[in-house]
Amino acid sequence: MNPTERTPNRRSIWRDGAAVCVVDQRRLPHEWAVARLTTPTQAVEAIANMAVRGAPLIGVTAAYGLALQAAGDAGDAALHAAAQQLKRARPTAVNLAWAIDRALQHLLATAPARRTSAAWDFAAQLADADVATNEALGRNGLALLHRHAAELTRPLQVLTHCNAGRLATVDWGTALAPVYLAHAEGLPLHVWVDETRPRNQGAGLTAWELRDAGVPHTVIADNAGGHLMQHGQVDLVIVGCDRVTRRGDVCNKIGTYLKALAAFDNGVPFYVAMPLSTFDATLDDGLREVAIEERGAREVTHASGCDAAGRLVEVQLVPDGTAVANPAFDVTPARLVTALITERGVFPATREALEALVP
Amino acid sequence: MNPTERTPNRRSIWRDGAAVCVVDQRRLPHEWAVARLTTPTQAVEAIANMAVRGAPLIGVTAAYGLALQAAGDAGDAALHAAAQQLKRARPTAVNLAWAIDRALQHLLATAPARRTSAAWDFAAQLADADVATNEALGRNGLALLHRHAAELTRPLQVLTHCNAGRLATVDWGTALAPVYLAHAEGLPLHVWVDETRPRNQGAGLTAWELRDAGVPHTVIADNAGGHLMQHGQVDLVIVGCDRVTRRGDVCNKIGTYLKALAAFDNGVPFYVAMPLSTFDATLDDGLREVAIEERGAREVTHASGCDAAGRLVEVQLVPDGTAVANPAFDVTPARLVTALITERGVFPATREALEALVP
Repeated sequence: MNPTERTPNRRSIWRDGAAVCVVDQRRLPHEWAVARLTTPTQAVEAIANMAVRGAPLIGVTAAYGLALQAAGDAGDAALHAAAQQLKRARPTAVNLAWAIDRALQHLLATAPARRTSAAWDFAAQLADADVATNEALGRNGLALLHRHAAELTRPLQVLTHCNAGRLATVDWGTALAPVYLAHAEGLPLHVWVDETRPRNQGAGLTAWELRDAGVPHTVIADNAGGHLMQHGQVDLVIVGCDRVTRRGDVCNKIGTYLKALAAFDNGVPFYVAMPLSTFDATLDDGLREVAIEERGAREVTHASGCDAAGRLVEVQLVPDGTAVANPAFDVTPARLVTALITERGVFPATREALEALVP
Repeated sequence: MNPTERTPNRRSIWRDGAAVCVVDQRRLPHEWAVARLTTPTQAVEAIANMAVRGAPLIGVTAAYGLALQAAGDAGDAALHAAAQQLKRARPTAVNLAWAIDRALQHLLATAPARRTSAAWDFAAQLADADVATNEALGRNGLALLHRHAAELTRPLQVLTHCNAGRLATVDWGTALAPVYLAHAEGLPLHVWVDETRPRNQGAGLTAWELRDAGVPHTVIADNAGGHLMQHGQVDLVIVGCDRVTRRGDVCNKIGTYLKALAAFDNGVPFYVAMPLSTFDATLDDGLREVAIEERGAREVTHASGCDAAGRLVEVQLVPDGTAVANPAFDVTPARLVTALITERGVFPATREALEALVP
């Protein structure tokens, strides 16, 4: 059951000869399935249908998609067309366009005969860079966990929201990277996992990852975290982020703000794991300036899981025809964030610190 | 589709000749089904299997269960035995023991020949008293809604958590009573309905009730309410309560505290609909003194709903063998409560106000 037995270096994406392998995250936590992508169109589909998800992983998948194209036809027109297709797979994912633009620029500047190997190399480097960033971020977070654990005579209690783990990245994850490193060092800890309705990335993906890695954890309804904090059962919160503004406001999965409020009200440190690539210098006031994606109604009207026969099915939770709203993210004001954990160190969520960090 | 077409006086429990009818809430929102109870054992089962739920409704169901017993055998021994059975159906429901003790005492003091009619009368009076309390509470809340709506040029936006509506009581509900009265008066309003994991009483029961009454509403994930409040989309919050302490701390469905924090952070009034029967003079510090019920794991590991074929099924959301925690209630400190709406008026959540109200 160790992930290293299933994937090379535990990664959620890897090359296998002329193919690219990814974990099909739509089947988790009920089934471990690897999808082999052999054409750029298959890479587009894997991104569009959310077999892969998580901004860093999407970017790397797209770069590998371009390599699959180059392996077939590395001409300028073919590369341009594939890049267009890949970018359209999830138009709102910033990392996707960024990765594709960089890869395409690099390949067009390379002699056609060397483009195939250059494309594979580019994708591999992008994947390695993601792993290195997350590991560095994880080591900085690890020092924090040690500091908090030093005062305790019981396991350190960490709460997390959504999935900011291995499955959202190539490896390590962001919020979970310090947790994996701490567990590997034998630091006793336990993770409270928010279910994270409506898509249940906590109940499905984070619980699966932590179980797979042998990290003690307990899944809770999103409603329960405040109660646990009131009763001293959470030592710190770590979440990931999708975007951080110049003044340190944090855009992350819907519900993050509620946990930040509860942490503040109970004196529980609230940390945000933030690869510097998520800094958005175009934004300042997160509440006014971040456009919040409204996702499909079906995520709220239904829940998906395994029935008694082991089939993956969707069940309807609301009366027929019920209106729902489904904002996918919210913004946690900088004042509620104890610190940002980055690959370059741990910093306060302030304009001054972010300006010094990302000039 | 009007509830008056289905149940006498819109009630969730009523007598029909020698039988007692209740709405089977386990089938909602997918199916409207009425269960006819003709024996005290059937009343016990309806309470135990949660065909009926909500503390006021459980108490009234138990009183009717005793009437079903009296109609068969009104002897002291038979009444005692039935009372025991009914009390054991949900041992933690305070209203249940209270209603049964009062009913039994009253019947034992009545001449055997008159006990059957006395038992029916007692149950009917208990039901009527619940309706009267909730309607009075509703009228007091209605005045509040009018005051908030007076400043607006758009529909009043109300957020509620869990189900504190008709289905939890005999009629009107508590938190929803002011909403129903306002809607009947033509006050334009819209209700944001928290899904309320893990049992989804919001997505299932509150959405069903509001739809049935024609009140505009939108279901949201429990994670979304804070974001809506940050963006001025909620004018006030009204929730029910299970218990209020001497200093005004409010014990209610898990997740209530998180919404109270968000309301406070955004200057949104946070009201608690509180029938005075929920005041618990034995408690002062809600956080330290209220024992929080831990419910079964399956509520968190699974979700139940209708599959594509219209069958009610449960689906598993987490990996096999995942540990979960399921605290059913939390405590909102009095400092976060704007006011308590009771059948005797609207009062601050303070020791002074509560002492004057319930000496």
